[in-house]
Amino acid sequence: MSTYIAPLRDMRFVMTELAGLDGLTALPGFEEATPELADAVLDEAARLATEVLAPLNKTGDEQGARLSKEGVVAADGFAKAYGQFVEGGWSGLSGDPEFGGQGLPELLQAATVEMWNSSNMAFALCPLLTAGATEALRQHGSAELKGRYLPKLVSGAWTGTMNLTEPQAGSDLAAVRTKAVPEDDHYRLYGQKIFITWGDHDMTDNVIHLVLARTPDAPEGVRGISLFVVPKFLLNADGSPGQRNDVHCVSLEHKLGIHASPTCVMSFGDQGGAIGYLVGQENKGLAHMFTMMNEARQKVGIQGLAIAERAYQQAREYAKERVQGRLASSRSGGVVAIIHHPDVRRMLLTMKSQVEAMRAFAYVMAADMDRTHRDPDAAERARRQVRVDLLIPVLKAWCTELGVEIASMGVQVHGGMGYIEETGACQFLRDARIAPIYEGTTGIQAADLIGRKIASDRGAGMAELIAEMRETAAEQVRSTDTQVVSIGAALTTSVQALEEATAWVVQTLTTQPDAALASSVDYLMLAGYVCGGWQMGRAALVASRKSAANEDPDFHRTKLATARYYADKILPGANALLETIRSGASSGSELSIEQF
Amino acid sequence: MSTYIAPLRDMRFVMTELAGLDGLTALPGFEEATPELADAVLDEAARLATEVLAPLNKTGDEQGARLSKEGVVAADGFAKAYGQFVEGGWSGLSGDPEFGGQGLPELLQAATVEMWNSSNMAFALCPLLTAGATEALRQHGSAELKGRYLPKLVSGAWTGTMNLTEPQAGSDLAAVRTKAVPEDDHYRLYGQKIFITWGDHDMTDNVIHLVLARTPDAPEGVRGISLFVVPKFLLNADGSPGQRNDVHCVSLEHKLGIHASPTCVMSFGDQGGAIGYLVGQENKGLAHMFTMMNEARQKVGIQGLAIAERAYQQAREYAKERVQGRLASSRSGGVVAIIHHPDVRRMLLTMKSQVEAMRAFAYVMAADMDRTHRDPDAAERARRQVRVDLLIPVLKAWCTELGVEIASMGVQVHGGMGYIEETGACQFLRDARIAPIYEGTTGIQAADLIGRKIASDRGAGMAELIAEMRETAAEQVRSTDTQVVSIGAALTTSVQALEEATAWVVQTLTTQPDAALASSVDYLMLAGYVCGGWQMGRAALVASRKSAANEDPDFHRTKLATARYYADKILPGANALLETIRSGASSGSELSIEQF
Repeated sequence: MSTYIAPLRDMRFVMTELAGLDGLTALPGFEEATPELADAVLDEAARLATEVLAPLNKTGDEQGARLSKEGVVAADGFAKAYGQFVEGGWSGLSGDPEFGGQGLPELLQAATVEMWNSSNMAFALCPLLTAGATEALRQHGSAELKGRYLPKLVSGAWTGTMNLTEPQAGSDLAAVRTKAVPEDDHYRLYGQKIFITWGDHDMTDNVIHLVLARTPDAPEGVRGISLFVVPKFLLNADGSPGQRNDVHCVSLEHKLGIHASPTCVMSFGDQGGAIGYLVGQENKGLAHMFTMMNEARQKVGIQGLAIAERAYQQAREYAKERVQGRLASSRSGGVVAIIHHPDVRRMLLTMKSQVEAMRAFAYVMAADMDRTHRDPDAAERARRQVRVDLLIPVLKAWCTELGVEIASMGVQVHGGMGYIEETGACQFLRDARIAPIYEGTTGIQAADLIGRKIASDRGAGMAELIAEMRETAAEQVRSTDTQVVSIGAALTTSVQALEEATAWVVQTLTTQPDAALASSVDYLMLAGYVCGGWQMGRAALVASRKSAANEDPDFHRTKLATARYYADKILPGANALLETIRSGASSGSELSIEQF
Repeated sequence: MSTYIAPLRDMRFVMTELAGLDGLTALPGFEEATPELADAVLDEAARLATEVLAPLNKTGDEQGARLSKEGVVAADGFAKAYGQFVEGGWSGLSGDPEFGGQGLPELLQAATVEMWNSSNMAFALCPLLTAGATEALRQHGSAELKGRYLPKLVSGAWTGTMNLTEPQAGSDLAAVRTKAVPEDDHYRLYGQKIFITWGDHDMTDNVIHLVLARTPDAPEGVRGISLFVVPKFLLNADGSPGQRNDVHCVSLEHKLGIHASPTCVMSFGDQGGAIGYLVGQENKGLAHMFTMMNEARQKVGIQGLAIAERAYQQAREYAKERVQGRLASSRSGGVVAIIHHPDVRRMLLTMKSQVEAMRAFAYVMAADMDRTHRDPDAAERARRQVRVDLLIPVLKAWCTELGVEIASMGVQVHGGMGYIEETGACQFLRDARIAPIYEGTTGIQAADLIGRKIASDRGAGMAELIAEMRETAAEQVRSTDTQVVSIGAALTTSVQALEEATAWVVQTLTTQPDAALASSVDYLMLAGYVCGGWQMGRAALVASRKSAANEDPDFHRTKLATARYYADKILPGANALLETIRSGASSGSELSIEQF
């Protein structure tokens, strides 16, 4: 198997040229986030990812986490690696300084999250969930709760979980049945949660569960759900872990992938009731939980990018080494490495160009998230928030769907060797396959995109985005670089398609909501491809300028070629989605169940 | 997990209305293949698939085949099931009556192959390889070899294998190094072959290997390869298995899927030389082997269809049972089965419509194969052969690529449950993933399509196909059924795209072969979608007529709706391939290896 090498050059390009790292540094609170610091952080993260996390990826897959009488035991080496992760301060990189975090930008965090997930997705899920739990507690917890739990969560000394799903409820949180009965200053929880990622383990001395449950007199449906914090070990007066709480992992799922990430069935209250503390207001649990879900969705989107990058690296290295066949263009020549074959190039460039588009999209959004927190101008903060809210479902679903496609293509590049587990390529496919499902399936993201985000402002936020995209396309078309002009022409067509599709969605939502929903995933995917194309277009402008100025010309010419490839090969298929979107439910809504 | 139910109604529709079963019955040698016999055969096959093979699918996946000191041991129950398969006469269904086969049409065989692969793909690989070996021996073996081996292969009493690939050679057969040294009336073979499907097992008392090797003075490259038959047990004078031959399975691959199908590393000649017999002419082995590869490629295409059908059934049943969420179109209503959700319908219909398109394409080609063998008119036989040769790579690659996509979508329909192995949906994805790789990767099929088939007649065979497609589209556009008119309009656009793409390929092949190859997979996929669309168009014409005549109106209206869905939702993406095809290698050919 190839070694994971963090794509630092490309990460820096995106952070600096597209996501505006310099501008972030100028924001209050980010004074320390200088390019020099960012460089140092990236280098250190890359070292941890390559030297510590990556070597555990395959062994973790083979061994998996296991359930013992004492609870879940992480795969060999994971506890030690997690210790190094915490010691390096990675858990609190963008965390609130009030609770011990380093307060660095989400943009920097995004790059590190990519590295953790490229090198070891199963491992990376643990801090991913912790970050979500931390953020929910930080925003909605009482001062006392925050004081007792946040420092340990921010540092990573303890990990956090999200307990939403119940058997038979799935994505429908209205059906949550876990009970929370008030008692003194706390509640006692009773119920079962499923699909709880890293719900238990032996890597830290406490695990902090955030749990959705219903109080006795709560109304039906989503308006009767409250959020609780339920520690695995109750805290002593001095804050140290004390008595074992009545929450236990009762079984682990046997999954297609991410074997080293324990997916737990968690039982609350089998022995008298799990003690929990209300977070925020009673019956406002769903809103509070969305805080952590948005956080987690952004990071799961980055997972899609990360696993695609890893699959690309694996395929690229194999294609360079594997010698087989001759070129049609020179029959007299000898056998060549398969990377010279046009169809292998097609696959590698399909992977590479989309990975770069995803990265640019994800990092630019992370920088937007930073601006929603730190921009001194309230109007600008609000404007960025609209953009982030609009695009989080797109980032989550588009990147994770592409993650599966690209990991599958990575298998294909290997031919027969790709199908052998030893090669390592199919682990990436198995791991990638969860990402379009958890934290809200692609269908859920698409329903959120059109039903909440587009519907709420009748497409105004999308229109603003489209206007910005048009500016980029116009600038490209005015370029003296014919490659850039060509990319700009492709982007113009795609932006037009997105605009027309948005108009159709806005109109159809009110008249035929089911038809709009039938096209929602196609619409989301179109938005994703065009967002990616926009960033590739911006990258092409920079790359053309720098290449002309003879600045790192090899890198910038490659970037330009990749952007061109994306415009020529990826965008046409995206444009075709306009037609499928407009066909709505087609004949699908006519069929009775028996006709399927 | 859902039970596999053979889609007999749809199979019969395709066989009768699209593939012309009645016409086949009129051909010499097929007199017995009456619709009544076909019905009885389908019913019996469905019973075996559902009752015997399907129940072993999951247990076979979990247990896998294993290597013991005595050789490979098949998963529990497989030997008994194979016995029933042989006893039922399924192995020789379309086999040569001279050697005990039933001589029934390939069309009927295609339907049974679909059932075996839907119910248990790992099992079905064993007869699939046997059929290829049988055909190569039948066409190229001496009378003596045929007399000794064919009756047992046709009956399935013995199984056959294809030994092509060697380590480091992969798809490049020019690099084959296995030696065959003449000795008396036979040869002694020395070498190692990898990726040998069902290369050894304990289900029959002999295994017959067809092996590519080089004689001592053979020329370099593909012109120096000969084909040999190497039995696991040498035959006694009476034809019974006698002395153990020097060919052994030395290890099994640990694969992503098809765990119950042993993928063997086969070693020839470790203990003095494996005795083998020349099949056909020396140094003509590659041509002889292509006989079995074409045979196998057609069946692997059907595998893609079969696993997609199975994944569809699993997803459909889950979607009917799983109750979750409310409809946007009736917020006041209660929770519903997820099959009512528009996005779940989208996924199911994307699966269903493509499965039906693949089935129609595959069965029509099987009937064409029958006509190449049995049509009394030599010109017609030749014409059909051109069609079959042209479309086999399309069938193989398009159906298997779709098999992966559809199996992956099947996982998605299940949400979180899809990722749990217990549910069974991800086995289909794991199993499906091999099909675009073995028997020639998608890239190899595409190179064959444009480099051999299209190049050999400069697109004349494709032009003839396109002309037939246009007739269908024209008939649709003249229909009084507005649905049919709409489908016909979509088909017209797609046929036009295929025609323009073919013109581009023909032209580019001579001027820039690498650019043509860079677009070859896109071209193959376009051809596949349009071939599928053509058959769906033909189906729509029949369905509209029968529905209007009130013949089985529910079935025919469903068929029409599915064809409409394919036209509205699948064809637009296919049409977009024209643009990506024309962009050739885009910027891909400019990049140096280091720039990847």
